[in-house]
Amino acid sequence: MKDFIFHVPTKILFGKDQMKNLAGEIKKYGDRVLLAYGGGSIKRTGLYDEIVKIFEDNNIFYKELSGIEPNPRVESAVRGVEIVRENELNFILAVGGGSVIDLSKLIAGAVFLDCNPWDIVIKKEKITKALPIGTILTLSATGSEMDSGGVITNLETKQKLSFGSKYTLPKFSILNPEITYTVNEKHTAAGVADIMSHTMENYFTLNDGAYMQNRLAEGILKTCIHFGPIALENPTNYDARANLMWASSWAINGLLDTGKETPWSVHAMEHELSAFYDLTHGIGLAILTPRFLSHILNDDTVDMIRDFGINVFNINKTDDKFKDAKAAIGALHMFFEQDMKIPMSLTEVGIDEKHLEEMAENAAKHAGGSIRGVVELNKDDILKIYKACL
Amino acid sequence: MKDFIFHVPTKILFGKDQMKNLAGEIKKYGDRVLLAYGGGSIKRTGLYDEIVKIFEDNNIFYKELSGIEPNPRVESAVRGVEIVRENELNFILAVGGGSVIDLSKLIAGAVFLDCNPWDIVIKKEKITKALPIGTILTLSATGSEMDSGGVITNLETKQKLSFGSKYTLPKFSILNPEITYTVNEKHTAAGVADIMSHTMENYFTLNDGAYMQNRLAEGILKTCIHFGPIALENPTNYDARANLMWASSWAINGLLDTGKETPWSVHAMEHELSAFYDLTHGIGLAILTPRFLSHILNDDTVDMIRDFGINVFNINKTDDKFKDAKAAIGALHMFFEQDMKIPMSLTEVGIDEKHLEEMAENAAKHAGGSIRGVVELNKDDILKIYKACL
Repeated sequence: MKDFIFHVPTKILFGKDQMKNLAGEIKKYGDRVLLAYGGGSIKRTGLYDEIVKIFEDNNIFYKELSGIEPNPRVESAVRGVEIVRENELNFILAVGGGSVIDLSKLIAGAVFLDCNPWDIVIKKEKITKALPIGTILTLSATGSEMDSGGVITNLETKQKLSFGSKYTLPKFSILNPEITYTVNEKHTAAGVADIMSHTMENYFTLNDGAYMQNRLAEGILKTCIHFGPIALENPTNYDARANLMWASSWAINGLLDTGKETPWSVHAMEHELSAFYDLTHGIGLAILTPRFLSHILNDDTVDMIRDFGINVFNINKTDDKFKDAKAAIGALHMFFEQDMKIPMSLTEVGIDEKHLEEMAENAAKHAGGSIRGVVELNKDDILKIYKACL
Repeated sequence: MKDFIFHVPTKILFGKDQMKNLAGEIKKYGDRVLLAYGGGSIKRTGLYDEIVKIFEDNNIFYKELSGIEPNPRVESAVRGVEIVRENELNFILAVGGGSVIDLSKLIAGAVFLDCNPWDIVIKKEKITKALPIGTILTLSATGSEMDSGGVITNLETKQKLSFGSKYTLPKFSILNPEITYTVNEKHTAAGVADIMSHTMENYFTLNDGAYMQNRLAEGILKTCIHFGPIALENPTNYDARANLMWASSWAINGLLDTGKETPWSVHAMEHELSAFYDLTHGIGLAILTPRFLSHILNDDTVDMIRDFGINVFNINKTDDKFKDAKAAIGALHMFFEQDMKIPMSLTEVGIDEKHLEEMAENAAKHAGGSIRGVVELNKDDILKIYKACL
């Protein structure tokens, strides 16, 4: 196990009855709030009205940044920074899924820098302080509610890149599983795939001695496999929504990758898909992961993939390691396709061969020449994986 | 799943090379340190000299509180409070296992109250602020390095009771697995039993929907079962010591009991044993747990205990649920006895029938009349469990 530092001071307020704590938590940090959200769903569900009433009852001044995109665009961060500066706001409340929270993190850091927020994403500028952020999570998926990173899209340059800073970790996050009752089938499934992908990106490593971390990862995967189909079948099953929500936070808050190097692979490939096509992130991850595992299956990785099948999908262990590993990959594919009803090919989501070469080149380039994950993937490897997804 | 708040801001510095950060971490909070430790082991291993050199190199003033007992006594807290006050100390560095850290927490809170520290333990007084605490962990067991509670013994009144306050959560903890290389067989085994007991106290609950938490608990139990025997066999196996150390923190830092009620049972019974006999806590827990499970085995609990056997010990599932549950209990007993070389009866550790009745009465009394765990245990139940341990 490698040396590491683990420090996740985000306060999680979980459950049906936590909004009563919202004003008190905000007032620890500020009283002039940027209320950031996406489309109109929080207005339809009544959450918006509830928040505004809490603000009014508690003399909390606020300005709104609405319309944050599902793959949040840097232009929205520019708008957000302007609103913060014009109104001297001192706190950001992000109400939404990963996209709203990610964008809020970028705004929180960019406010204190004299640059375009995109300069932070491309590492030209560095966040050195940030406005405090609180979140009210509405979608179980990215884990942004309990980590310090984000992913921002620049449609102009066709880039979707991640950034992070310890200063942008949320101070608190309110997680009410009931809020996710209205998440539709597609986004519920995509969210489960996203949680599982984060977990698997941390899980698939070789010989690093991080045994406990991998047993915990298996626990999170089993939770997704158990409750994903229940949430699709019965969107108002509280325990299903609650377990998926809590799993989303732990898949990526840092615990699973303590003590190991986890250079992610599938996310780097997926970011090109959603940068080019505005594809739902989790769907792209689900399509790519089984093909990625098939591509990297070799003498070095066969035990790792086989153990995954045995420990997570309860596949029967046989004398043929490669057969077992293929059964594991098949089980994952079938779970996404049959149980989570995810379209499991690029063709089905409207992506053809046209940009595959360019996307493979970009994926390699954005990773610094090649994706150096558990198995190194150069441009040709990535292209093969994309083609296997058609 | 029940509503909950999870907030664990302790910064964990884990690994071989973290002492370089000690002075910097302390100086965020203070520069006049109470250096708290137990017997002479930190002097024998060189850790004491290393710390003192860091203090001197960084102009950190310090006073020592040494000789803290394995079951830490309230008298040591009285001494500690005096030293802090006399020297106007503003930080406590606890170097040791759970006993040293637990006692440091009591001192940290008692300094600001005009009472005997024991009044805090018996809930006559309440901690409202505390000195900041840092820890250097030397034994993987109690998890005190990442939680806010402690257990204090009063030999005069024959009481061993727990207390806790959010103010006494360590600000940082340095976890170097190499430090535990010198922990002997008995205390390594007792530590593993302690970690497993914390996990099981959180795990054995009924129908609460906290599915993920129980899958994570199983991951921690598997980690202990895998690495416990390796650490006994080869005390300098880094990955074994590292996994056990990291497991100790997560067994009891609050994650495993999020969303569920976990009124502990075995600890309440064990505390009487070590209050009366100064028994090593983990040994008492190991002896009690299989007998506790046998005692509570009934129609309501059989599935819970059977699942434990299947998921943690890989026992074969048969058509006879009770047979499977008994096999699970047997597997746990055999693991402690055969793999961890723990004496598995009270007789072997020098405890006879003499005080069993009195201890059973006290255990019930200290729990408020009966132990209301997953199955309620009155005085007679407790006495039966004690007798089964002879």
